[in-house]
Amino acid sequence: MDRFYNAPGDVVDEILRAAAVTAPLRVAEPESGLRILIRRDWDKADQGRHQVAILSGGGAGHEPAHAGYIGEGMLTGAISGSLFASPSVEAVLAAIREVCGEAGCLLVVKNYTGDRLNFGLAAERARGEGLDVAMVIVADDVAIENAPQPRGIAGTVLVHKLSGHLASRELPLNAILERAEALCQRMGSLGMALSAAAQPGQAAAERSPELGLGIHNETGTREVNPKNADEAMRLVLEPLRDALSDRKLSGPWIAMLNDLGSCSTQEMGVLTASLLRQLGVNQIAHLIGPAPLMTSLDMHGFSLTLLPADDDVVEALSAPTTAPAWPGLHVAQAPAHFSPDTRQDHEALADDAPQDPGTSALLERVIETLRQSRQELDALDAKSGDGDAGASMESGAESIARALSANRLNTEALPLMFAGIGQLLSREMGGSSGVLLSILFTAAAASLDRRGKLDEALAAGVEKVQAYGGAKPGDRTMLDALIPAIESLQRGESLAQAAQAARDGAQATAQLVRANAGRSAYVPESALKGVVDPGAEAVARVFEALATMG
Amino acid sequence: MDRFYNAPGDVVDEILRAAAVTAPLRVAEPESGLRILIRRDWDKADQGRHQVAILSGGGAGHEPAHAGYIGEGMLTGAISGSLFASPSVEAVLAAIREVCGEAGCLLVVKNYTGDRLNFGLAAERARGEGLDVAMVIVADDVAIENAPQPRGIAGTVLVHKLSGHLASRELPLNAILERAEALCQRMGSLGMALSAAAQPGQAAAERSPELGLGIHNETGTREVNPKNADEAMRLVLEPLRDALSDRKLSGPWIAMLNDLGSCSTQEMGVLTASLLRQLGVNQIAHLIGPAPLMTSLDMHGFSLTLLPADDDVVEALSAPTTAPAWPGLHVAQAPAHFSPDTRQDHEALADDAPQDPGTSALLERVIETLRQSRQELDALDAKSGDGDAGASMESGAESIARALSANRLNTEALPLMFAGIGQLLSREMGGSSGVLLSILFTAAAASLDRRGKLDEALAAGVEKVQAYGGAKPGDRTMLDALIPAIESLQRGESLAQAAQAARDGAQATAQLVRANAGRSAYVPESALKGVVDPGAEAVARVFEALATMG
Repeated sequence: MDRFYNAPGDVVDEILRAAAVTAPLRVAEPESGLRILIRRDWDKADQGRHQVAILSGGGAGHEPAHAGYIGEGMLTGAISGSLFASPSVEAVLAAIREVCGEAGCLLVVKNYTGDRLNFGLAAERARGEGLDVAMVIVADDVAIENAPQPRGIAGTVLVHKLSGHLASRELPLNAILERAEALCQRMGSLGMALSAAAQPGQAAAERSPELGLGIHNETGTREVNPKNADEAMRLVLEPLRDALSDRKLSGPWIAMLNDLGSCSTQEMGVLTASLLRQLGVNQIAHLIGPAPLMTSLDMHGFSLTLLPADDDVVEALSAPTTAPAWPGLHVAQAPAHFSPDTRQDHEALADDAPQDPGTSALLERVIETLRQSRQELDALDAKSGDGDAGASMESGAESIARALSANRLNTEALPLMFAGIGQLLSREMGGSSGVLLSILFTAAAASLDRRGKLDEALAAGVEKVQAYGGAKPGDRTMLDALIPAIESLQRGESLAQAAQAARDGAQATAQLVRANAGRSAYVPESALKGVVDPGAEAVARVFEALATMG
Repeated sequence: MDRFYNAPGDVVDEILRAAAVTAPLRVAEPESGLRILIRRDWDKADQGRHQVAILSGGGAGHEPAHAGYIGEGMLTGAISGSLFASPSVEAVLAAIREVCGEAGCLLVVKNYTGDRLNFGLAAERARGEGLDVAMVIVADDVAIENAPQPRGIAGTVLVHKLSGHLASRELPLNAILERAEALCQRMGSLGMALSAAAQPGQAAAERSPELGLGIHNETGTREVNPKNADEAMRLVLEPLRDALSDRKLSGPWIAMLNDLGSCSTQEMGVLTASLLRQLGVNQIAHLIGPAPLMTSLDMHGFSLTLLPADDDVVEALSAPTTAPAWPGLHVAQAPAHFSPDTRQDHEALADDAPQDPGTSALLERVIETLRQSRQELDALDAKSGDGDAGASMESGAESIARALSANRLNTEALPLMFAGIGQLLSREMGGSSGVLLSILFTAAAASLDRRGKLDEALAAGVEKVQAYGGAKPGDRTMLDALIPAIESLQRGESLAQAAQAARDGAQATAQLVRANAGRSAYVPESALKGVVDPGAEAVARVFEALATMG
């Protein structure tokens, strides 16, 4: 299976069933064989007396068109054929009979022979029954110059929206028809695809990238070979602008960017950026999409529709609707910028920071210990990780050493010293360990600042390390030495006792063969047996160094 | 080029630029190198005094997450990293500083180590600056049983919505955190893909369909081989329901169906139908999507998120938001059906229809003429089309013959006769010609009914044939004989003169080498030279037959 389908023949009915269950519609009984979906709240004898009913439809395979556009302020109902095949006259006529009240009914039809004929005959028959029915044929495709019958493609969605809005405002049928036809004269669309659509159950035809294709997998008007998204957009934009310019139409534009099927959101984002750049933000008054609006199954391509941003059209397109697939109108505007506040140092690191000689000496001792431990820690890490634990610790130590010798670390006020160490480790140590140790010192600094108790502050830091790092005791991380040491301090024990607790905790990691977090999480259990975790070992060594001094 | 990208390194900034131009955002100056997007109308000294700011973010490649969820009632801002890589601590901290007012700030973070650490450290540093910051970690993925650190995937979007809604209601930070964490405990998500995502500039890895993959193109927890969409949905739904059931969670559910990247709207529709069928409409209180909500570039796959439809959650998810990518909540409901009105016959065709012997004889004569012309018309058509024009005309004639002999065609009242013929041709003749002739007679019937003049009625019919069929005189169609004949009648000339006009018109088609519509539109000009159009020929013969009788 290379696509999420069941039986190819069931695709259309499954899609329509999903639409009918998730939106307030009523649908023709399945036994009728007709695929008609109508607004559930529409009553031709009620709203239909004052509001023109708007129907559209055509072949399936263009979803969310047309069922997704049913809702107040857009379509009253939709008639679907099979994949890429027009619905029958009977289906269109039954839909007209279901929705058309005194105010009449407008059929919005894409310019394809089958649709024109079947919707047309249904309209004539409905008229024969005394119903007031009109039809607007959308022919927005500019792919073929001077085509006698340009195809109707994505622009059709705009006619749905305009007509539905005017109907909700209770304009009479002839006025809506006139406005819809005027809109059709003032817009153009053009599509491009990198590859063809695949009918369910069939493989996609191998085709070159093409410009000017329809929405029924028709071949494009010419093969193209764009080298990137910018060129693809230019290939579409230039002939489209030329065609509109020939009709004396000009910007600022409403631009609609339609995903023809299987473009990713990222590709559509890049294409949007191309469009904004090439047309200019000040020439785009409003943007519709990017979104799949009128698709051609899973065709990997897009179409662009442009029309002048006339006030009446903007008003109609901006009006609210309950149609689930209408994506709304974005106002395009030059981006507003702000200057991000990236202050690093505030008061924690400063020139001529006050120094406490005893505390500075303790720090120097820790730094020296870590320098001397580098090779042994790296060796331990080589057995359980990527072998750089010692180097990483040393680089953190050196960052502190540099700040100390530059008198930028305040060793007189412990909260400031901890905050400063936190900043140094974040900025200069790198890696997950750098961030975790930075979290430890930063959180401890905040606690010290509030409560002034060192053991509590360290415990608060460890808690954050666990919360953000996701490791628990027993996961073979530095926590296995750090937590026993801090708990010892919290019991009021000496630094020597705390160092012993750290050492015992570190030794115990050699028996932990399951690592749920941290560096050893991806190492087989057998490789861990008997190996002390280098993070825990580093912690034990630091506490031992402090105990010697203290 | 097989994807719409420019330089691979520019993808993220292009996407974010497009987002910033089409939504009311302010963004960090590009020179800062930080990717921060904030609600343009957000002022931490104004709204931020009473409303908690909600920030989210993470690696790029998940669009519309996270920038698409910025808006009133959802995110205050978003921080984006590079593709699949966490943003820096500096970027997150700058965003917090930009949005966090007295009411505080909540960070919504997906459970990946990089995000947890970088957002976590930024939170701690912000706290160190006196800002009130909390963090909720979303871990909704159920792919790995008893995983110590389940990943955060599509469910994150629901946490954005819930938190943003509660913030807009001015709930305090700790209350929002509590509600967000409660939501995280009550939902689960699971994904499946048919193929892997491709990093811009790289080919997609060849991988089998997989279940339980993440949103960074990580390998799934197991390879699967679903034979259709139903089985794919079952493979996702069953373990997801089991996982939720283990947590004592049950329906009715809110279900969210997420396109992981490049599924077509049609595939998502089929998957939605599968979900509705397998879970049961009455077990789905609300549906979110189908839509690309949390993607993994162009991965061809989907994920499903389920959570109980708790009232408070439904209320939060249903509340309006201006965030452009939030798709809203659909109420799932069994489809309502109606019985389509497919009456064919109303009064035009009826048993024991009144007969006018003269008119009936005329019709018989026309029918006989068409029967006898079949071979010659087919032969003409073989030179310019598919060779069935005669057979098609004869089949239309036979349908009228059958109705005549059954006394079902009213030949006494011309409007009813024309309407009846229109219905017979539509139903029994088939093809474009059948529909076009049906339009001719149906429209003529309506005109006759209103105005009573035969020549005018025929002219009205021809006008509709042109409007719906799209052919003009000179396009090598039956119109080239029909229009001159009707114009002759409108000038008050005799049937013989009208027949001559039809004959002249038909003969002239032999010189028309460019066909813009109808059967000959795809035939090379050289093949048309000297060949009379079979439709025009048929019309001439019918008028000649009528003239003989008349």
